[in-house]
Amino acid sequence: MKRWLVNGVAGAQIEVTDRGFSYGDGLFETIAVRDGRMRFFGAHYARLVLSCRRLLLPVPEQQALTDGAEKLIAGDANGTLKIIISRGPGERGYRLPQTVVPTCAIGFSPEAVMPSPVDGIVATVCATRISSNPATAGMKTLNRLEQVMARAEWDDPGIAEGLMQNLADDLIGGTMSNLFVVLRDQLWTPVLDESGVHGVMRAQVMNLAEDLGLRCNERRLTPGVLDEADDVFFTNSRVGVWPVARIASHEYTRHRRTLQIMQGLAERGVIECAC
Amino acid sequence: MKRWLVNGVAGAQIEVTDRGFSYGDGLFETIAVRDGRMRFFGAHYARLVLSCRRLLLPVPEQQALTDGAEKLIAGDANGTLKIIISRGPGERGYRLPQTVVPTCAIGFSPEAVMPSPVDGIVATVCATRISSNPATAGMKTLNRLEQVMARAEWDDPGIAEGLMQNLADDLIGGTMSNLFVVLRDQLWTPVLDESGVHGVMRAQVMNLAEDLGLRCNERRLTPGVLDEADDVFFTNSRVGVWPVARIASHEYTRHRRTLQIMQGLAERGVIECAC
Repeated sequence: MKRWLVNGVAGAQIEVTDRGFSYGDGLFETIAVRDGRMRFFGAHYARLVLSCRRLLLPVPEQQALTDGAEKLIAGDANGTLKIIISRGPGERGYRLPQTVVPTCAIGFSPEAVMPSPVDGIVATVCATRISSNPATAGMKTLNRLEQVMARAEWDDPGIAEGLMQNLADDLIGGTMSNLFVVLRDQLWTPVLDESGVHGVMRAQVMNLAEDLGLRCNERRLTPGVLDEADDVFFTNSRVGVWPVARIASHEYTRHRRTLQIMQGLAERGVIECAC
Repeated sequence: MKRWLVNGVAGAQIEVTDRGFSYGDGLFETIAVRDGRMRFFGAHYARLVLSCRRLLLPVPEQQALTDGAEKLIAGDANGTLKIIISRGPGERGYRLPQTVVPTCAIGFSPEAVMPSPVDGIVATVCATRISSNPATAGMKTLNRLEQVMARAEWDDPGIAEGLMQNLADDLIGGTMSNLFVVLRDQLWTPVLDESGVHGVMRAQVMNLAEDLGLRCNERRLTPGVLDEADDVFFTNSRVGVWPVARIASHEYTRHRRTLQIMQGLAERGVIECAC
């Protein structure tokens, strides 16, 4: 991120005692900026509010976030905005500070929009597993070491994403994305009650699916589903949809349903998908 | 922590782009300082080195750490030293930076030595579970949100520690300590291949146990063991040993073996245990 506001002030430093640094005690959002505006900000803010409540973090004011974002985006049309909310500085020990003064860091990087690759991406299956815990499942917390270790497994620029499984071998999602598989006229995506992140683009895809006559089910996905699937794709807020052309020994070529979904998203303003 | 060195320079700020803050991408050590010296520094450093290798982090020079620690401890006799090693500043995304410039933050707080409570402490059983993952098990990583949430479950100053279980109900340890139970002439402590931290004081106790005729076993501990146990105690580097007087409906009064262990540790320089 090129430009930062920390608690409303331009700058790029935080206290070493910040509990975000000590314990990963906080949350973040990564938001696509298109035509100078945050895309799906309402959905990002709603997730942030719910997650703050679950983690007993003070909820940041919506206005403060949008004011900060506007100041950072300034004249740029496209880019990525990141909002980090941590529990702020603290003494040693896990106990919550008596008075929490949260840290709100907002960063922005101008970036060109990369259209989703219509032919699909190549993905790998990571050896690093994602752990299960209902207490933190679904949230974008600052505890991301498993994703870091999974992403460190490959260096080949031809591989765009890595699929992560839990210890029971269930498919959970990409290191930085949600997973969908198309089977006949159904769309399946992993249930996120124990691991994974309730992605904003995931929710968009689920809303859209019904309009396309695709019944969308959240369910436990075992690796065998990759054999049976017609299409496989990943989603996230920044890239929109990534059709998967190859993952391990599985190849997918038609992407029929995936392309329909991308077209539907494009109509809803996800310009990466306008292919 | 009252006094800090960040990469060798006095100060208390880090970059907002530090991957320790973004992802909890790093490790820490908490070391007791007694009579102006770090206790069991060799064991702490050995764990740090092993953990850095597992996380693909550059290993900090031992001399740099001891020089920094000495500078911070200065004239104080007793206190707590914290060493944080993170993967340093990075761009957006989980991928490891091409050139890693790790952050080494060392903090020190002077503190009076609190003798271990011979009568034992009261502990609670936390509802928040600890997740399982061999990729991160045993290390003191900066991903500590589960411990934070567990510690937030109680506010009663009469409760000193909370026992955490994994999703399979196995006992793993305290929020900030390792767990031991005494059964007849055996000492049992949870196996840490999927969760928990390889505590420095835990290793000291395991070494000592044999000398006392207590066979020490690492094993899977189910909650029923609390019914059968003669003694239960927690250990960490700063508090030494905490005998448990009460946890949930279980009461322990004699602490016979625990007091033997405390005496043995006191002879090895763990002055909190000199009771």
